[in-house]
Amino acid sequence: MNHPRAFPEALKRPVPEALLTALRTRFGERFSTAHAVREHHGRDESPFPVTPPDAVVFAHATEDVAETVALCRAHGVPVIPYGAGSSLEGHLLAVQGGVSIDVSQMKRVLAVNAEDLTVTVQAGVTRKQLNDELKSTGLFFPIDPGADASLGGMAATRASGTNAVRYGTMKENVLGLTVVTAEGKVVRTARRAKKSSAGYDLTRLYVGSEGTLGVITEVTVRLYPLPEAISAAVVSFPSLAQAIDAVIQIIQLGVPVARCEYVCEHSIRAINAYSHTTLREAPTLFFEFHGSESSVKEQAEIAQQITREHGARDFDWATHPEDRTRLWTARHNAYFASLQVRPGSRAVSTDTCVPISRLSDSITGARRILDSAKFPTMIVGHVGDGNFHAVLVVDPNDEQEMAEAERLNDAIVRLALSMDGTCTEEEAGDDALDLMRRIKRALDPDDIMNPGKIFRM
Amino acid sequence: MNHPRAFPEALKRPVPEALLTALRTRFGERFSTAHAVREHHGRDESPFPVTPPDAVVFAHATEDVAETVALCRAHGVPVIPYGAGSSLEGHLLAVQGGVSIDVSQMKRVLAVNAEDLTVTVQAGVTRKQLNDELKSTGLFFPIDPGADASLGGMAATRASGTNAVRYGTMKENVLGLTVVTAEGKVVRTARRAKKSSAGYDLTRLYVGSEGTLGVITEVTVRLYPLPEAISAAVVSFPSLAQAIDAVIQIIQLGVPVARCEYVCEHSIRAINAYSHTTLREAPTLFFEFHGSESSVKEQAEIAQQITREHGARDFDWATHPEDRTRLWTARHNAYFASLQVRPGSRAVSTDTCVPISRLSDSITGARRILDSAKFPTMIVGHVGDGNFHAVLVVDPNDEQEMAEAERLNDAIVRLALSMDGTCTEEEAGDDALDLMRRIKRALDPDDIMNPGKIFRM
Repeated sequence: MNHPRAFPEALKRPVPEALLTALRTRFGERFSTAHAVREHHGRDESPFPVTPPDAVVFAHATEDVAETVALCRAHGVPVIPYGAGSSLEGHLLAVQGGVSIDVSQMKRVLAVNAEDLTVTVQAGVTRKQLNDELKSTGLFFPIDPGADASLGGMAATRASGTNAVRYGTMKENVLGLTVVTAEGKVVRTARRAKKSSAGYDLTRLYVGSEGTLGVITEVTVRLYPLPEAISAAVVSFPSLAQAIDAVIQIIQLGVPVARCEYVCEHSIRAINAYSHTTLREAPTLFFEFHGSESSVKEQAEIAQQITREHGARDFDWATHPEDRTRLWTARHNAYFASLQVRPGSRAVSTDTCVPISRLSDSITGARRILDSAKFPTMIVGHVGDGNFHAVLVVDPNDEQEMAEAERLNDAIVRLALSMDGTCTEEEAGDDALDLMRRIKRALDPDDIMNPGKIFRM
Repeated sequence: MNHPRAFPEALKRPVPEALLTALRTRFGERFSTAHAVREHHGRDESPFPVTPPDAVVFAHATEDVAETVALCRAHGVPVIPYGAGSSLEGHLLAVQGGVSIDVSQMKRVLAVNAEDLTVTVQAGVTRKQLNDELKSTGLFFPIDPGADASLGGMAATRASGTNAVRYGTMKENVLGLTVVTAEGKVVRTARRAKKSSAGYDLTRLYVGSEGTLGVITEVTVRLYPLPEAISAAVVSFPSLAQAIDAVIQIIQLGVPVARCEYVCEHSIRAINAYSHTTLREAPTLFFEFHGSESSVKEQAEIAQQITREHGARDFDWATHPEDRTRLWTARHNAYFASLQVRPGSRAVSTDTCVPISRLSDSITGARRILDSAKFPTMIVGHVGDGNFHAVLVVDPNDEQEMAEAERLNDAIVRLALSMDGTCTEEEAGDDALDLMRRIKRALDPDDIMNPGKIFRM
């Protein structure tokens, strides 16, 4: 998404007392205009200033969402969906004011279809909760963006994660959605069957739409059998380039790695301090292999051989589940660890993805760009997919620093785009943006659905 | 799509002489209004009557398409994209007249990015041509709908095929498209990187849009390393139910079969006659396994064990490439074989997909429905994905038979829908259809892009 600060012209819209009264009457204690509640719903894990909504509705069911949207629409008031609040990019900030619809209490797993490898959940179910509830089935939901995000939020932001190399992103794993439209109507985008051939792919249109076309209230996703065998390994390298070249070769050989993460030496140092680990402070790859016993062994052997050829210094195995959990928890906490290197800081992060053949150039280029920064910077990434994050640890109250971060960010994005890459910043051409705007206008003519996100209308 | 005959109200729109003159001036010999050319472009492999366009333009480049669309738009005249003409469902019939844009001469492979496992081609490149041109790279494009379809057509119809169990459909494998919009503008929907997180998923919106939102002129798809080992097997069963139950168990165990096709005994009989094979005339499964030597062995052993437990009578291996080719050619020709059982006939086929747990009920139910037919009927399908086709071999000139076929078709579709399935007929609810109509109106306000398809505007 664009940064909210890119919308200085955005004006808070008036929220009539009549709407607040109607919502209070309808939802009672599940409606709030309390300062603390609004503040809580006006910030996420992004570095942007708190931008609270005018009111919050705690929804328990799709119908609650539909009624709230219908009421807001009648008054021309924006609605902003709120899930786990774990966005790193300001998706839930109420940049034009309005009503935040908190779905975090919509936590029911509605239908596990173990035979079909599908599950339907309410939008507030988080990925950890889901996997806990699936434990007895021998199945799991693999998408793992780090945070314990809600499935509604993951769908709305088209979340990816450490497992994407093998299992894909939300784009590939959402089979259907229940969505409340800007008119307050309830639409089911698809049935549970794997192939749908009737009409436009509404599911994929809503996946990644960031609440701008409707509010996602239920999500059906694909599940996978828990692998028979799993092993993980940490490998450190003398240089960034060697690590990335090893990744490229492993991916190009078609090794079906389940996870392949790059963590730079600065990030390892932060992780060691935060998670009390003793990882070698060097450019590092984290691997995980899933499959049958023999397939995991085969994958690991190939990866070991290739990393050695690229100068790897260690190849530490984590075969016990507890060791693996510790390892991935440490990796997941990299973001929070980065904040700890500088008290009071916030992290600005860039999310870019390039074709795997350009990964080495793109990531070493990003490193060079970051080297000029006066504040701590790190690079971590789901490199198996060509996807990496530059993390800039800034003082949010220092305007110069924020401007500098934006400048570096832009340079990294431009570099990625020049390599046929993509990023969360604007990538589409003007004509493509025009098509998107026309879709937005067609489905949300009053611009009440999370306005100010994705693009300026 | 809806059957063209569902549009009795559709009126041919006037095609002004000025437009024909302009196109003739611009395209010279690449423009035609000849009767034979128009007839050729007014029929596909569907059972529908020939519905020719008023003229045909043979495009060589995206710009040719853009100019044609711009000219047609100025006169309010429909454009209908034409690829290989292999649709089974009437996608290319000019139900409201207009200009057919034939992209079959747009046959250039524009960029093979072997390192990134991607290729960009002009829309007229067919899947066989592409795989021929990829031979030296060790990579292949797996999606295989049977016919040697064009990649543009496969994207526009969201093609699936025998390999979908392992490799997915066009939905999962198209990375980006170049599209000519209804305004004649050229839009690239995405870059080559694997993950795109900026804005709405235009790629997935155009995939499956059947030419109703724009004309696809270039396609970037994912490639895969040719598997180290491949083996195929034919297994026959005493009954339909036993065959399907074996499939369900194999899929639910997570065996990564590359292909898993069901062919009914009637279809086997037709195949034997057409392809001079000697397959046992019984409910049959065709399997193919891809992977490393050890993984293929493992997969095949599990499949063999499970099929035996379900009463399989033979498990015939085809390990030589020639044997495999003969096997899959025979399977692919099932459609044409079915036409041969009745000279002068056309086939009406239904394309339904159900969750795998409902496959047995759905396919045995379809068989019971078909048993009442007075003409030959068959069932074949990509059953590993829950996807199957009922094939009704009808006399297109016998109105009673056509009506009967439509009735049986509807019954099969209703059964699939009652089992949370999908089909090419209308499946979406009214509110979902309303969203689709609004998208169509937003992107094609004059309704000139393949009008009359997907839904009535």
